[in-house]
Amino acid sequence: MKFNGINVQISPKAIIGKNVRIGDNTTIYDNVEIKDNCTICDGCVIGEPLNDYYSNPDYENPKTVIGENATIRSFTIIYAGCEFGKFFNTGHRAIFREYTIMGDYCSLGSQSIIQGHAVTGDYCRLHTNVLIATGSKLGSYIYIYPFVCFSNDPHPPSKIVTAPIIGSYSQIAIHSVVLPGVKIGEQVLIGANTTVTKDVPDGSLVMGNPGKVIGPVTMIKSKLKEGSHYPWMYNFDRGMPWEGIGYDNWLAQGGEKK
Amino acid sequence: MKFNGINVQISPKAIIGKNVRIGDNTTIYDNVEIKDNCTICDGCVIGEPLNDYYSNPDYENPKTVIGENATIRSFTIIYAGCEFGKFFNTGHRAIFREYTIMGDYCSLGSQSIIQGHAVTGDYCRLHTNVLIATGSKLGSYIYIYPFVCFSNDPHPPSKIVTAPIIGSYSQIAIHSVVLPGVKIGEQVLIGANTTVTKDVPDGSLVMGNPGKVIGPVTMIKSKLKEGSHYPWMYNFDRGMPWEGIGYDNWLAQGGEKK
Amino acid sequence: MKFNGINVQISPKAIIGKNVRIGDNTTIYDNVEIKDNCTICDGCVIGEPLNDYYSNPDYENPKTVIGENATIRSFTIIYAGCEFGKFFNTGHRAIFREYTIMGDYCSLGSQSIIQGHAVTGDYCRLHTNVLIATGSKLGSYIYIYPFVCFSNDPHPPSKIVTAPIIGSYSQIAIHSVVLPGVKIGEQVLIGANTTVTKDVPDGSLVMGNPGKVIGPVTMIKSKLKEGSHYPWMYNFDRGMPWEGIGYDNWLAQGGEKK
Repeated sequence: MKFNGINVQISPKAIIGKNVRIGDNTTIYDNVEIKDNCTICDGCVIGEPLNDYYSNPDYENPKTVIGENATIRSFTIIYAGCEFGKFFNTGHRAIFREYTIMGDYCSLGSQSIIQGHAVTGDYCRLHTNVLIATGSKLGSYIYIYPFVCFSNDPHPPSKIVTAPIIGSYSQIAIHSVVLPGVKIGEQVLIGANTTVTKDVPDGSLVMGNPGKVIGPVTMIKSKLKEGSHYPWMYNFDRGMPWEGIGYDNWLAQGGEKK
Repeated sequence: MKFNGINVQISPKAIIGKNVRIGDNTTIYDNVEIKDNCTICDGCVIGEPLNDYYSNPDYENPKTVIGENATIRSFTIIYAGCEFGKFFNTGHRAIFREYTIMGDYCSLGSQSIIQGHAVTGDYCRLHTNVLIATGSKLGSYIYIYPFVCFSNDPHPPSKIVTAPIIGSYSQIAIHSVVLPGVKIGEQVLIGANTTVTKDVPDGSLVMGNPGKVIGPVTMIKSKLKEGSHYPWMYNFDRGMPWEGIGYDNWLAQGGEKK
Repeated sequence: MKFNGINVQISPKAIIGKNVRIGDNTTIYDNVEIKDNCTICDGCVIGEPLNDYYSNPDYENPKTVIGENATIRSFTIIYAGCEFGKFFNTGHRAIFREYTIMGDYCSLGSQSIIQGHAVTGDYCRLHTNVLIATGSKLGSYIYIYPFVCFSNDPHPPSKIVTAPIIGSYSQIAIHSVVLPGVKIGEQVLIGANTTVTKDVPDGSLVMGNPGKVIGPVTMIKSKLKEGSHYPWMYNFDRGMPWEGIGYDNWLAQGGEKK
């Protein structure tokens, strides 16, 4: 019953690739490019105009690009000026404010919000009800779990915008808060309901409110085998580029540099 | 002005009971059964197909059942495979992923999400902005308050899914986190903004980050009378099956066993 | 492409001012008044009927008023009985339950919920994913940051409703919880991820779980100049009535009393 073309509005200034399915009640604005084999479900808004649209008669919508093979679930809102790589995926009602740039194989869960002018690398998996502050920068292979919130104003309200920076392979567990300007290194694990108040060195486990470095992340034992679950790349590969071949082999084949 | 039949789509393979009202812009998919006297408000999606729908031409939507006298508020999304008992109630934009099973007289508040393959008993009241992890199991007469979040992956990211189990008559106050695999007993109160890291015995009060057992829940004095507010069943009956007759009388009449 | 009049429903008992733009798929119910120069974006619901509507054939929708120059972003739901002053602003999918009253120049961010029977003064900026409990009372010039949650039931579940009261010029940082009946004074700063368990005196900085008064808010140094950022009114004026003239001059000209 999906994809009946009911109440669909597509700008004549949008570019729609081959084998793209567009759900009912979806609107696609000027200067949106949707590449081949994408599925855009019901009630989505792609290329939502910026504020200026409401007052400037000469407003021109910035370019928005959705890479090949995306699945955009129902009621997602993507502002103009965003760009996403291939195999992009959203939950229901995700919101991407203007100038959010994400690499290949990224996802954002239901009701999560990226506040714009933010950038991620590839294979970032941001779950449900996440809030990523304006200006945030994320590396690749990062998981962010539900209700995690980044902030960017160090003494509110002020005009300062200093957003978090997150290193590749790091994990931020549910309900954690990352304070303005904090730099989290690579291969870090932030435990559940942690308040991250200062920079975190590579490979650390951080827990508590305020968050403290408890030790190296390798201190966490695996529930499935002898030794540690971390670095997790050796124990988890679902949807990762080293799936089926192992992390070391992937690295040996060129890995991240590919 | 509601229920005008504007832009409503109902599958010919859906079963709609007597005296059912269906709001505008609502979609009801294959193999949904909506029993008598239900109100489905505007913009709802009932029987949302599973992922497989997008790729499998022989996809058959699993059966979805909404019991008698439900009120489904606007923009709620219920995936296929869910079943709800009678007098089911949702806030706006609630999301139920596939194979969520809830008993009679249950509710889920606005913007809350049950991630599927989860089960609750009867009279469970889950409030606004709650997130219940895949695989969670709840007894009956449970209240869960806003921004509470359950998780199910003990060392993220991993392939392990071990969700919380919550005993009957327990209460989880706002902004709390329940960690993977935690078993919360019956008649427990989890205080606001608590991180529940380990199993909780029946009748306990737990607070803090990490959460600690402070004592028996009966230590909390009532603001309305001498003595304790807990067990709350003796001091609160709104919408409960012992309303007007008292908890002891209800038990004496057969109570839970009915 | 906005404002095409597609699938718009406006009650003949609504009053629409001059130069009001109404987005596609928006519904405006009985007894709503939208004043001049408002923009109501796509998919909004203004004057959502109360529960009684579903069962009472003589139901009469309470009056709802949107002041001049409002911008209501897409998919916002405003229940009947609400009133907002001029230059009111919402993010996407904000929800205002019945009898929410806000002054001039107020805003509520995307996916935030005010649970109704609540009141704020002027210039209150409530950000994304905020939850304001039924019965809350806020002064003016208050900022509330993402994922902040107010509660109003002191020993859940009970019939007691005792909501927070927040003094003017106060700031509540992200992911904080304000417990039932707590009175927060004027010019207070609640730090990120704080649980506010008891009343807070004017001018205090509160942090932690449970929240403790750390000292006067003036102890926080400015990142932009010598001395403290607080009282913030001397260091931030964007969108405030003292913008461009300074807080002292504004007060001297009559300030709040105007």
